[in-house]
Order: sequence, then C-alpha cells, then structure tokens
Amino acid sequence: MTDVARLAGVSIKTVSRVVNSESGVHAATAERVLDAIDQLGFRRNVSAQNLRRGTGTGTIGVVLEDLANPFYSTLTRAVEEVARVQGKHVLTGSSDEDPTRERELVLEFCARRVDGLIVIPAGHQHGYIEHERNAGTPVVFVDRPPGEIDADFVLLDNAGGTAKAARHLAEQGHRKIGFLGDAPEIHTAAERLRGFREGCAQADVPFDSGLVAMGPHTDESVSAALDGPLRDATAVITGNNRITVHTLRALAGRTSRPALVGFDDFELADLLDPPITVITHDTWALGKSAAELLFARLDGDTSPPGRVVVPTRLLVRGSGEVVR
Amino acid sequence: MTDVARLAGVSIKTVSRVVNSESGVHAATAERVLDAIDQLGFRRNVSAQNLRRGTGTGTIGVVLEDLANPFYSTLTRAVEEVARVQGKHVLTGSSDEDPTRERELVLEFCARRVDGLIVIPAGHQHGYIEHERNAGTPVVFVDRPPGEIDADFVLLDNAGGTAKAARHLAEQGHRKIGFLGDAPEIHTAAERLRGFREGCAQADVPFDSGLVAMGPHTDESVSAALDGPLRDATAVITGNNRITVHTLRALAGRTSRPALVGFDDFELADLLDPPITVITHDTWALGKSAAELLFARLDGDTSPPGRVVVPTRLLVRGSGEVVR
Repeated sequence: MTDVARLAGVSIKTVSRVVNSESGVHAATAERVLDAIDQLGFRRNVSAQNLRRGTGTGTIGVVLEDLANPFYSTLTRAVEEVARVQGKHVLTGSSDEDPTRERELVLEFCARRVDGLIVIPAGHQHGYIEHERNAGTPVVFVDRPPGEIDADFVLLDNAGGTAKAARHLAEQGHRKIGFLGDAPEIHTAAERLRGFREGCAQADVPFDSGLVAMGPHTDESVSAALDGPLRDATAVITGNNRITVHTLRALAGRTSRPALVGFDDFELADLLDPPITVITHDTWALGKSAAELLFARLDGDTSPPGRVVVPTRLLVRGSGEVVR
Repeated sequence: MTDVARLAGVSIKTVSRVVNSESGVHAATAERVLDAIDQLGFRRNVSAQNLRRGTGTGTIGVVLEDLANPFYSTLTRAVEEVARVQGKHVLTGSSDEDPTRERELVLEFCARRVDGLIVIPAGHQHGYIEHERNAGTPVVFVDRPPGEIDADFVLLDNAGGTAKAARHLAEQGHRKIGFLGDAPEIHTAAERLRGFREGCAQADVPFDSGLVAMGPHTDESVSAALDGPLRDATAVITGNNRITVHTLRALAGRTSRPALVGFDDFELADLLDPPITVITHDTWALGKSAAELLFARLDGDTSPPGRVVVPTRLLVRGSGEVVR
C-alpha cells in the first residue's frame, strides 16, 4: 500500500479510501491510484479487510472423513458450488473417522474464523462446538446427526434404503440374507442395520444376527465373513460403497456367489457382470441442502434447528436376482 | 477478549500476553487467564494473529478442474496430508476447465492471503500470477505446466505412457489403432497424442490421423466416433479416466469390440470383463510432490524453478489382447 501511495503521489489514507470505495476522493486521483495498483499488482487483502469489518473471512469449513472417497468429494463439490454463488470459498479437512481429528479440525477452522462449518461427524460428542456456535459460527451436520447438541443436520433415509433392499431380496425368494455393515458406532451403519432388520420383518424373512458382520472392512475381512458366518447366506446387503467394492473383489472368480445389493451407487456398477443393484441417493443434494441450511443461518435465520432427510431408492440392475 | 479480561480480573494487555506466550506475566495470573479462557470457550483468532504477525493465514489454495473427479480429489487429499504436517489447511476451488474461472479463483485466493497456491491450470496464460508471486505467494503448477511464466511444476510422464500403450497394442498384432483424447489445447491431451504417435513410429505401426478423435467427450460422442472415423480400428487408446468410462459405456452390449487401453487406472477396472489394461501412475505422489515443492518455497528455497516428472507405467490386465 505504501508503494501504491508513493507511485500515485498520494497519502496511504487516500489509497485506502479508493480501495474501499469510500467517498471524498477526486475522480482523477482515484484513477491515478487505480493505475498504480495495476502497475504494482497490488490486491486488497480481503482477509484483513473482512476481519476489520467483522464480516468474516469468506470461507466455509468442511470437515469430512476422506476427501479421496468419491462420496465425500461429490458432496464437497456441491457445497463449493453453493458457496461460490455467495462469494465464499471452501476449506476442507479429512478426519479419517477419528473423533479427535474431527475436533481439532473444527477448532482450527474456527480459530481461522471460518464464516460457518459443515461437519460430517466422526464422533458423537459435539458439546465442544457449542462455544463456537454461541460465538456466532453456524454449524450444519451432514450424513450423520450431531451428538449432545441440537443443531441443523441433513441425513439420508438410511433405514428406508436397506429396508427396501431386504424386501427386494425377499421378493426374489431369498430367506437367508446376510448384512455386511460398517462399525455399529457409526450412525449410518447402525441405521442401515436397523432398516435391514425392519425390512426382514416386513417381508417375513427371519432376521439372523449370525448373518451380520459389522466393522471397518477390508478385502480380507469380507472374504473371511463370506466364508465364515455368512457362508449360508444366499444374498448379501453391503452397507456402503467401500464395502461393496471389497465384496466384489472377494467374490471375483468364485463360481457360486450370493445375490448382492449395495448401499451407494458407484461408477460402472451397471457394467459389471451381473450389473449391481444398489440403494442410490442424490449425493449432490446432500451437500447442497447442507450448504443451503448454512447460508440461511448466515443470512440471519434464527428458527429452531432443522432436519432434512434426503430420500434413497432402490435401483434394480440384476445382482439381486442371482442365486447360486 | 474483554470478557476473558473481566473474568480473570486482569487487563486486556495481560490476556493478550498470555495468549501470545509473551513474557512478563506471573504464572498465577497466566493460570487465571487460561481458566477464564477455558470457561468462556475463547479461542485465539488465528487469522487476525497471523495477519498481524505477517505469517500468512495458514492456508494453501488448490485450484483444480473438478473436485468430484477422483483424480483431483485424490491429488487434493495428498496435498491436505502434507499441509497438515505443516499445520496448514487447504482451500479448494473447481475451475471446470474454464481459464477465466481459474484466474478468478487464483486472484480470490491471493486476496484472501493464502500462503501458497497449487494450480492445475485450465488456461495457458499465467502472466497474471506474476504479481502475486512477486508479492511473495509461491505457486506450484501440477498436472500441466504454466504458460508465459517460469515456475515450479509437477507433471506425469504423459507421452511415455501412451507410447508404451501403442507399443503394447502393436505387440498384440494391432495395426489400426485409434486414439480418443481430450481437447488438444489441454497440455496432457496433446502430450498423450504425441506419445501415441511416437509409440506407433517405434513399433512401426502406421499413424493414421483419421483414427484420432480429440475433444471433450460424452457417451454419445464416443459412440459416434467408434461408429464413424474409428470403425476400422481394432484397438483404441483412451486419453483419460473420463473418456475410458464413456468408451466402456459405448461398448457395453456390443458383440464385436476393439481392444482397449485407458490412461489413468480406475476402481474396478480389474473386475470388468475383460479386465481393463491401463496406463497407471501414482496420483497421490503427484499431489505430494507439488505440496512438497510449495512448502520448500515457503521455507525459503529460492533456487530456480524446478520440474518433477512422475512416471507412468502400463498395467496389463487383458483388454489390450482382445481382438474382435
């Protein structure tokens, strides 16, 4: 700014007035300042300016599990698009499903004065966020609800999805349906298991907890489950896109394989043999709804915390019909 | 801060000293201030503090094409991991392959005082970044080199990859090899075409420009190319993961299909029938190298601009051998 003032032959105060579009500067002088700015490539320091004006930093923090997972990167891209229209940018942080890391990221983003936060919670304790919310940073939870506090959140209809999958498999004649889910502490995993159980009851198929294997999964753990507790299952429901992929790898090359319905659609699911039936949903809508809730709060909406449920639907492609 | 001072019964100056770990505060007083901070949930405003100290905002800007594309989200996650060790966070922005949007994002990130930038360029003109670099914001380009300016960049060995693919297909007996690439203005697309041409020459296979279709592709455009100019090709090389997926969709259900080698590996490529042979590379290494170059600059490295080339390799899975 000193360089601009020197080059334009004006005071720093005058440069500041021009940059902040304040009145009281002659047009010719303003022109000279703008020319100097062009010559020197000086740009307003938006951070400092926003902070000084108390309008925030123009950033939205997104705390998610793993940006490299297409589910989260699509969701984040949707947030980015909503933020863009508002002239805001997105800070991302991956928690790797670690509650401590989630908390660190949230507090670091708040310390960096983000205008608002979208959090896919790794943990269940969010009392620590109350301070930040009280200090004026709105927080919207997405994919999983917050623990301990009452706040806006956007979820998928998880239980409805797996209930539909169970009924579909029952209609195909399956009576021994296995379930490969994520760790039961994870809200979505618990809800999908609950839906599976409800779907079995609705279709009059016995629910057998011996055919359920929950936990973080790998190719090996899925293979072990299929050869162990689930060996009598004629059909399997997989609890998320990662577990579906592990299952497809575990089943590759086997001559007899169970029918399969996976939660989350994935690219090329329709080109596999058999094409994979999935419980699908609009991931983009999940991110968009969360961002819209957040911006409503930033615009002064003080209504009680809201809850949005994004529907899930069964996309039948064929893998549910296969019987070994 | 006023609340903390009031609760602790000290001056604002004392609170500031404690928060900034300055000397001259009695241990008991400091303890009282920290207790008050705990009680009130007060957190340092890191943005303001960093700006005041001139140490930047603790953020790295990443300008990429589309965060929802797994190639870019994996690359960004790698940047995030390197940044995390340095106590920095990542701002992301998707340019959608639009040079104007790229420029806007870069300038907005600079105006927000990012400490450094990683840019996957959409355009070829980067003179506009010189001002920012001169002002002390290091920039590393990744996946494609910058235009007009001399700066650090990290690329894949694009030409080497497609040359290997062409030689592999020639070894399988193919003499009419088609090429489906992205728009030729894109550096990676031009380089991959060049490598294809070189590979043909090395393998003594005629290069036929009539068998080349460049441009942004869709399922329909790929289908039209396969039925039109490429109808005599017995093998096809696809120029990136998006085009490979379009090609797989276009080929689905056809009884006679060309052999195929795709640039970029993708999930489930090994589970398709036939399994897809790809030109693969370490996407994580691409992001990691770019971030490491950037942090070296932030640590004061003033050596001339560096260039890193990440190798590509052919992963033979079977689709190159198929002949209709």
